[in-house]
Amino acid sequence: MKKIYKAHILYTKEKSRFEVLENGYVAVDAAGRVAGVSVHLAALDSKDAEVIDLGDRLLIPAMNDLHVHAPQYRNQGIAMDLELLPWLQNYTFPEEMKYADTGYAERMYRRFVHDLWRFGTMRSCVFATIHTESTRLLMRLFQEAGMGALVGKVGMNRDCPEGLMESVEKMVQGYETLIAEFNKPDALVRPIITPRFIPSCTPEMLRACGELAAKYQLPVQSHLSENKDEVELVKTLEPESTCYGDAYDRYGLFGQTPTVMAHCVYTEGEELELIKRRGVMVAHCPASNLNVSTAIAPIRQFFEEGLRVGLGSDVSGGHNLNIFRVMVYAIQASKLHYQRNHDRHFLTLSEAFWMATKSAGSFFGKVGSFEPGYEFDALVIDDSDLNHDHYSLLERLERYIYLGDDRQIEKRFCRGKELGEPK
Amino acid sequence: MKKIYKAHILYTKEKSRFEVLENGYVAVDAAGRVAGVSVHLAALDSKDAEVIDLGDRLLIPAMNDLHVHAPQYRNQGIAMDLELLPWLQNYTFPEEMKYADTGYAERMYRRFVHDLWRFGTMRSCVFATIHTESTRLLMRLFQEAGMGALVGKVGMNRDCPEGLMESVEKMVQGYETLIAEFNKPDALVRPIITPRFIPSCTPEMLRACGELAAKYQLPVQSHLSENKDEVELVKTLEPESTCYGDAYDRYGLFGQTPTVMAHCVYTEGEELELIKRRGVMVAHCPASNLNVSTAIAPIRQFFEEGLRVGLGSDVSGGHNLNIFRVMVYAIQASKLHYQRNHDRHFLTLSEAFWMATKSAGSFFGKVGSFEPGYEFDALVIDDSDLNHDHYSLLERLERYIYLGDDRQIEKRFCRGKELGEPK
Repeated sequence: MKKIYKAHILYTKEKSRFEVLENGYVAVDAAGRVAGVSVHLAALDSKDAEVIDLGDRLLIPAMNDLHVHAPQYRNQGIAMDLELLPWLQNYTFPEEMKYADTGYAERMYRRFVHDLWRFGTMRSCVFATIHTESTRLLMRLFQEAGMGALVGKVGMNRDCPEGLMESVEKMVQGYETLIAEFNKPDALVRPIITPRFIPSCTPEMLRACGELAAKYQLPVQSHLSENKDEVELVKTLEPESTCYGDAYDRYGLFGQTPTVMAHCVYTEGEELELIKRRGVMVAHCPASNLNVSTAIAPIRQFFEEGLRVGLGSDVSGGHNLNIFRVMVYAIQASKLHYQRNHDRHFLTLSEAFWMATKSAGSFFGKVGSFEPGYEFDALVIDDSDLNHDHYSLLERLERYIYLGDDRQIEKRFCRGKELGEPK
Repeated sequence: MKKIYKAHILYTKEKSRFEVLENGYVAVDAAGRVAGVSVHLAALDSKDAEVIDLGDRLLIPAMNDLHVHAPQYRNQGIAMDLELLPWLQNYTFPEEMKYADTGYAERMYRRFVHDLWRFGTMRSCVFATIHTESTRLLMRLFQEAGMGALVGKVGMNRDCPEGLMESVEKMVQGYETLIAEFNKPDALVRPIITPRFIPSCTPEMLRACGELAAKYQLPVQSHLSENKDEVELVKTLEPESTCYGDAYDRYGLFGQTPTVMAHCVYTEGEELELIKRRGVMVAHCPASNLNVSTAIAPIRQFFEEGLRVGLGSDVSGGHNLNIFRVMVYAIQASKLHYQRNHDRHFLTLSEAFWMATKSAGSFFGKVGSFEPGYEFDALVIDDSDLNHDHYSLLERLERYIYLGDDRQIEKRFCRGKELGEPK
């Protein structure tokens, strides 16, 4: 049945500004798609529709997280005093090994999915581990919760601890199993091909990943140009590539199917052109840039070049699953980045919001906006505890983004369905 | 009566490391001072003492905020897309003018004091406005709440909107009134002399401020070297000064009595030497540096030079009153600052914690540590919802700092007294 929600509606059709509908209406059809949005009920087809009045609340698109490591959930907010390499070796890799145990995986993954729900993230691109069974379990937890996710069993067979390497054959076999179960048209939860990054994968592994992506028309995710040593290492490992991105491209892992690459801190010149040409999505992870990377990705420049950019939490390189916090970090990091070279303006609130909603959402289909035809992924924000003076609707949203947390999120919708708290 | 609290005790005697007492005890005497701290109850004088077992909770020193603008509370988390000047002119100054109305002031200041309490900040250095009555009201609210505060009626008589300027005579008169009421030995709430900053004050205003500080032996607070234009402007306004700090110094406002200066982003050379010589405290406001300043204060360098540095929220240049968040920003900002010039290591968790507790606390007396003789300002943290795996006590504290919020603060103590929620 069609539903019409009445509330203060805010979203970003374009990145340069918010659409603000005071006491507006959004109609959602039986398939969970937006049928119309207006300040006038009469402008919408309200025949047979249930009208739900949400009062003085804000209604906004739900959050999308383009880059998050589910098995690093336990390590969220610890070991942040370490540099990248000791952090990986002493915390990240040992933790990921534990996911050979599905009991451990279930305990942690339940909390992880619950926390995504809590912070209003309805769709995510998730790195799991090499372990097929734990990955399957994570995907089922997303299904149970009703949340959208592209989940990657991770391919790694080079220069990693023994317990985190898998042969190319086993990787392919594991993926085939997951694909058989989860690769359904229109499914909210689907597999995504996930080579960890070039340094962890032999050419054979990368080739097999590319072949899987092509064979099943699956999306691809990985890491790109996060720090200088890594960029240099890739030059040595893949000497024929003209840049790091080109190394993925040669194996069919760079836009041949929808592709998202995390970080792109040192992306420039030829790599930037290749990303643009291939329509690769950049997952900008500003909290992680501050915590463990060595610099800030030049997002304003990416915008000028017309690149697609969304936001990622990168837990646990980023310490916070809350994408609203990541928006704030995106703005702050850009202020610091661009004040050094005064040639560009920092990112604005609407740009950060757009990256988290409509831009990131485009990786999951028509997601992240309230324009007709978009899947209704939405959050109802009761900010009455933050709204203690005569704030405008935009100021209320800005305050929620800067100061709010999960307490103000009253309802969460994914593809039109209201989602209760996951068990 | 003496009380002994049993809990997991963490604090920073030195900035380089945490003291960690698993199931430790801290004894607090009838005057609210720490009488002893140990993992052995027998090591403490427990005669006639009530022992309070706090179970698996963390017991840490309370937070101190060295720089916060109470009348900018309404503007917290809005207008962050503006540059410093339009932000001041369109948001900050118009808001501060409203505090001529004590009714408005009471409504806002009550929320402000409540939020400081909520986030566990037991002592703060506060800028109020030029308005004597509103400032008195704020001081009384702090008294009612039982929290410590140095509160400054702000001196400004140059280059500001009409409604925010006051003559030197009225400024002195207003201060004398507040001093008569609040300047008691050992009082938790006291006045602090507060010229807004050099560009807002004529030489006469600065001189009068210095004379008040000397006459009543009152501490001083102001802003120093936050951005380049400001530093240049001060050179024009005070041409005889050798640096911005020296301009304050000439009026007796730079360490002649205890002095705290916010920001110091561009402090170097002679100014740095003068700060050191005068024992001036630096209030580092990293969230504000990211939001509205144009760079990051070089805190590692200040440490190497032996400067005193504490943390400030700088609401509403900083958007967050929560000093735990400010700690995280201090670490992140230093990572970004020092990765550019690889000559220094970023700030560590213990250094950030020390800045917020023992170092900032020293501006209020013996505050911010659990060493014997320190006033018992403390927070009891129930992190059971964050502690879902086998974390060490230090990891638990780090997770609380990075991920926790007011929900985990179970009890708050200031000078030995547990403080209930302010009305």
